Amino acid sequence: MRGILLSEAMAQRHATLLAHLRDPAASNGDPVEAVLIPEGESGILPEAELASIRAAFISTDVVYDPRRERRGFGTARRAPNLEWLHIGFAGTDTPIFRELMDRGVTVTNSSGAAAEPIAQTAIAGMLALNRGFPRWAELQRRHEWKRQQHAPPDLRGQTMTVLGLGSIGTHVARFAQAFGLHVIGVRRTPAGPADGIDEWAPPNRLRELLPRTDWLAITVPLTPQTRHIIDAAALALLPRGAHILNVGRGPIIDETALIESLRAGHLGGAYLDVFEVEPLPETSPLWDMLNVIVTPHDSNVSAGNAARFDAIFAEQLELWAAGKPLTMVVRDG
Amino acid sequence: MRGILLSEAMAQRHATLLAHLRDPAASNGDPVEAVLIPEGESGILPEAELASIRAAFISTDVVYDPRRERRGFGTARRAPNLEWLHIGFAGTDTPIFRELMDRGVTVTNSSGAAAEPIAQTAIAGMLALNRGFPRWAELQRRHEWKRQQHAPPDLRGQTMTVLGLGSIGTHVARFAQAFGLHVIGVRRTPAGPADGIDEWAPPNRLRELLPRTDWLAITVPLTPQTRHIIDAAALALLPRGAHILNVGRGPIIDETALIESLRAGHLGGAYLDVFEVEPLPETSPLWDMLNVIVTPHDSNVSAGNAARFDAIFAEQLELWAAGKPLTMVVRDG
Repeated sequence: MRGILLSEAMAQRHATLLAHLRDPAASNGDPVEAVLIPEGESGILPEAELASIRAAFISTDVVYDPRRERRGFGTARRAPNLEWLHIGFAGTDTPIFRELMDRGVTVTNSSGAAAEPIAQTAIAGMLALNRGFPRWAELQRRHEWKRQQHAPPDLRGQTMTVLGLGSIGTHVARFAQAFGLHVIGVRRTPAGPADGIDEWAPPNRLRELLPRTDWLAITVPLTPQTRHIIDAAALALLPRGAHILNVGRGPIIDETALIESLRAGHLGGAYLDVFEVEPLPETSPLWDMLNVIVTPHDSNVSAGNAARFDAIFAEQLELWAAGKPLTMVVRDG
Repeated sequence: MRGILLSEAMAQRHATLLAHLRDPAASNGDPVEAVLIPEGESGILPEAELASIRAAFISTDVVYDPRRERRGFGTARRAPNLEWLHIGFAGTDTPIFRELMDRGVTVTNSSGAAAEPIAQTAIAGMLALNRGFPRWAELQRRHEWKRQQHAPPDLRGQTMTVLGLGSIGTHVARFAQAFGLHVIGVRRTPAGPADGIDEWAPPNRLRELLPRTDWLAITVPLTPQTRHIIDAAALALLPRGAHILNVGRGPIIDETALIESLRAGHLGGAYLDVFEVEPLPETSPLWDMLNVIVTPHDSNVSAGNAARFDAIFAEQLELWAAGKPLTMVVRDG
């Protein structure tokens, strides 16, 4: 028996598929059984059940509840025969993934499923900052009709640097181009014409690009290489009045330096969905800055994601049950 | 002498062009002289000066100051030999334009100059409403980290009806398509493949379209035909949860019916830059609705507009001075 650890909601949602995989003809003769993430007080499965677990699925319904998240990852960690862990989201920057990969567990993610909504949120942040929506919201709250005193520069002709041209970055780049921005994509592998950007640069050329970057969009995963890649020196290289959009991970930016640059009026503003400490502490000065838009690591929310997450999981599960190579494998940072 | 009435700022900005038009070879021998919109207390020009005025330019610097706006239009109205009035904006729905056109004055506008920024603002409104930015702004104000409880529907696959496919509507349609919406364009003349919309419909088919319209974008000018075209019956035809974006003119919507539909929870929300009465009265319930974004008829603000307005004026002025047909003539609604 090959056990797969997952939440009750996912076991129900994928019941038909799981049942189908019990068919010996379709599953190399080795049936798949759902093992539910424990919900009880102790939260520890008996050894025999732990030993049956070959795969685990940490879905978003688990991650959104800290106690269930601990139980899910804790059980996966204790399962001695775990071969494969699938996650219903994209980020793999917490230590548990490194630990499992070091143990030889294959980790797959759902990269791309929420990419378009996240990119739309980043672009909403860009438009809101450029058009002056935060100031308008403040006027609306006070029932005040007051026209803009200073016209913002046209978006057409401005330059956006997209740090990380994965699934999110590619959508951000495409949307920015639709608004007439010149888009520079930064990633290790060279971009071809099909990538739909105006210019490509490798990460080691980032600092050269910053002085002509009006909008810096951060869409890279967090790795030892990207941590604090945007530090005080990088921020100082941006032109005065430049803006930052961060839908990647908080620690990619040195947040203390970011706050300093915003305070000094060097940066024109920022849209931030991610922070060095989450939840963002109540005392953070970012909350009260009028040119900063804060959202609670929620830029991805969209009703269509669930079906896309499900489709990715179902595809990986079928490949795994059939003994074929998985296609969403997370490689080293 | 052919006098052109304009503000001091415009006389200075276009000084070179005005001087050039004095050249007999370039101006049919009839020099052009600037006549400044009076700034003094009485605000009335001597009869001889009024009689010299053949053209008038009401620019945005005039319109943004109610006293100067009155002086500008008042002087144009009193100029007995006025042939041509140019305005540095697009809308011609106030009675003065009708009055001057009835007198035989040619009215030209600057339609299109601010179209792209206005369309970007409308799309910012769409994204902000879809992604939940108003709720996030409220959480930010309270330093509260709280994730969304209800995921909004994906924008991809939703339908937008753009009422009025002029320069603003065309940009709105193009941006909406970039986000994966199905776009229906409504205008009198049939659309061709180059118009870049998914479907075209004439205004008399609008009511048929409303039941499948998730986003109704209003970008038509105000005319007797468009006044209150979106009334209670039209709003009721929209599916529950539909949104409205109005960057056209307030009276295109019956605002009382709009407020009622928002209150009843039939409409999902609205981004409104224009209102039946402007400034929007302090007592309007629209200010306090959490799913309504109010901006002060300012969706157009962008630093690049000035140069585009100038280019249109300069082109029309050269045509006029050379006795050639003007290209930005406003036709009857």
